[in-house]
Amino acid sequence: MNNNLFADRMSIAHKSFIREILKVTEDSNIISFAGGLPNPAFFPVKEIAEAAAKILETDGGNVLQYSSTEGYLPLRKYIAERYFLKNGLKIDPDQILITNGSQQGLDLIGKVFLNKGDRVIMESPGYLGAIQAFSMYEPIFESVSMLDDGIDIDMLEKTVRDKRIKLVYTVPTFQNPSGITYSTKKRKDVANILEKHDIILIEDNPYYELRFAGEDLPLIRNFLEDNSILLGSFSKTISPGLRLGWICTTNEIMEKIIIAKQASDLHSNYLAQRIAYQYLIDNDIDEHIVKIRDAYKIRRDLMVSMISEHFPEEIEFTKPEGGMFLWITLPEKISSLDLFEYAIKENVAFVPGNPFYVNGGGNNTLRLNFSNSDEEQIEIGIKRLANIITKYFP
Amino acid sequence: MNNNLFADRMSIAHKSFIREILKVTEDSNIISFAGGLPNPAFFPVKEIAEAAAKILETDGGNVLQYSSTEGYLPLRKYIAERYFLKNGLKIDPDQILITNGSQQGLDLIGKVFLNKGDRVIMESPGYLGAIQAFSMYEPIFESVSMLDDGIDIDMLEKTVRDKRIKLVYTVPTFQNPSGITYSTKKRKDVANILEKHDIILIEDNPYYELRFAGEDLPLIRNFLEDNSILLGSFSKTISPGLRLGWICTTNEIMEKIIIAKQASDLHSNYLAQRIAYQYLIDNDIDEHIVKIRDAYKIRRDLMVSMISEHFPEEIEFTKPEGGMFLWITLPEKISSLDLFEYAIKENVAFVPGNPFYVNGGGNNTLRLNFSNSDEEQIEIGIKRLANIITKYFP
Repeated sequence: MNNNLFADRMSIAHKSFIREILKVTEDSNIISFAGGLPNPAFFPVKEIAEAAAKILETDGGNVLQYSSTEGYLPLRKYIAERYFLKNGLKIDPDQILITNGSQQGLDLIGKVFLNKGDRVIMESPGYLGAIQAFSMYEPIFESVSMLDDGIDIDMLEKTVRDKRIKLVYTVPTFQNPSGITYSTKKRKDVANILEKHDIILIEDNPYYELRFAGEDLPLIRNFLEDNSILLGSFSKTISPGLRLGWICTTNEIMEKIIIAKQASDLHSNYLAQRIAYQYLIDNDIDEHIVKIRDAYKIRRDLMVSMISEHFPEEIEFTKPEGGMFLWITLPEKISSLDLFEYAIKENVAFVPGNPFYVNGGGNNTLRLNFSNSDEEQIEIGIKRLANIITKYFP
Repeated sequence: MNNNLFADRMSIAHKSFIREILKVTEDSNIISFAGGLPNPAFFPVKEIAEAAAKILETDGGNVLQYSSTEGYLPLRKYIAERYFLKNGLKIDPDQILITNGSQQGLDLIGKVFLNKGDRVIMESPGYLGAIQAFSMYEPIFESVSMLDDGIDIDMLEKTVRDKRIKLVYTVPTFQNPSGITYSTKKRKDVANILEKHDIILIEDNPYYELRFAGEDLPLIRNFLEDNSILLGSFSKTISPGLRLGWICTTNEIMEKIIIAKQASDLHSNYLAQRIAYQYLIDNDIDEHIVKIRDAYKIRRDLMVSMISEHFPEEIEFTKPEGGMFLWITLPEKISSLDLFEYAIKENVAFVPGNPFYVNGGGNNTLRLNFSNSDEEQIEIGIKRLANIITKYFP
């Protein structure tokens, strides 16, 4: 076959860097802080099995048939009600569409909005999955730095003033990769700026429920309605294997999202939607989430204290109030890619930070996942990393 | 929000015509031959429930975790082995990727191959879902007519000679919408032409196992290796609610498909993949398929004999040897859209043929689904249609 047959977009697309790293870390001798996996010890396996048995027993013919593009209405109503309970938002269930995890939400947004050459603002560092999804639509990425309390507002304002921006992508709460959370003031500021310039905000919110310290903050959606696309997911609260996320947006945008979703795969897995809904109404999800939070808090606390104790003092790191990640900034002269090579040899892994910077940089940064390790692994792994740093970068 | 924010591709995209029709036919008083649904009476509900219970009991933590982009390896091996058994093809499991139904396969192919303005050949009439999926990548559609024994080879040859074609999309066996099957000679001819011109063939094959008359034919893939993309699905043999299909293609193309799949939704529903595999190894799928075939044969036979008996003689129709659809050609002067309006009023529905013609035409054609009706509905429904035709188009 003639290689020129591939579309232009494929020439810039590469296999996920993280995916390649995860392959290296599959060796069970390696203590891996690289992945972004929730801890399977807290998947509600028994309850999911009960939910599956129940719906197949009582409504098997429908559960296994084709279904609607928007997704199972009672599940969408449940999500809408939870937005009201948790965030005071009044959402119509028809403003929610069920996706194959929130990754598909990103793809559908790219499809609906992006012409080649359109400009998209990414947080820097920012979520790799979003970079990958949008890349397929050949946009130009602009990056705006993350500060301790969220995106750099001055830089955001300057960028939207100087350049014609279509979308801004954010993970305002316990960001992947940095663990950073936007302050309430920054949430308002972002809303004001985007409303004024008529730019669409994508507020990706997979970790919101995983807060183990501090107070819940409002969503940016609380300050911005017309130009908002909110993404949610059951991957971190129930389980990723169900592949269920959702898009919540205005009627006007939803009309196009439905068309794109139908063209992409007709509808999301209906069996999984029915299982998730049955699980949610038969169990106390809040009680379940408390278990996950408590477990993740123990891990975060331990990782933070081990780093404080064993890493050289000049190394900076975030202390997230929730989520699954912690972000390390090494002294400028240390390359985290070099560190990675040494670390793998000593059986400990992380993700080097550079790929999270869509326009380059961050060579001295790295991401650590704390959700999917046990306490012993965290103790041993962080000590190993500290030893490597001291040994090779004295 | 400023409407200009939407991507160009959305200005040509419309909601699915069939989807809108199906909404009209949701009324339970209507006898509907409009949908393309398999008959839920033959879903292996009990066996699926057993498979789900088993995998969640024995491997719940993994079943509910994130998984690989390519899909569950044992399931891919199973599919590869079945290609060998049924079609004598030697396929490496790594040449198979699991998709959310074969509709997602179409989207991924569009993503990997189509630049705006690239030319794609569609059968005329052709499958609507493919038209929708590819439309998102803004190609130019060329149409080649379907004859009784498959695509018009002379017209295909002329089109690929005159125009620079990138993809040809076919459903060579029990086509949706027409029920037509390509002869073995036409399968060879298509392979030869596409190989000579270095054009990619998409061979969409969801109905192959549903043959209730005649002999199995080779796949076009048996005559064409390098430029072939084969799409398969469990929707018609196990159930559509699992949303499981697959792409089978060369290593070279697969490399790009994996990148596109990962950007689109990371991976297909893992719970559903594990359930499907467990179901397949614990049950005799061939025995199950025989049941479906027998049931569909009874329905096809009845529909064909009812039409022969009650429709005016000048009306032509296909007599498919498998699949789920039958295609009607009315006299030129009768518009099937007009007929549809009358039919709905008398509580019987079908899909008018025009939307299946990507470049127009077919106003006097229509599609009838026979899989999802019982015998009484077929008898009453076809009589109603016959009466309407005689009454309004004498």
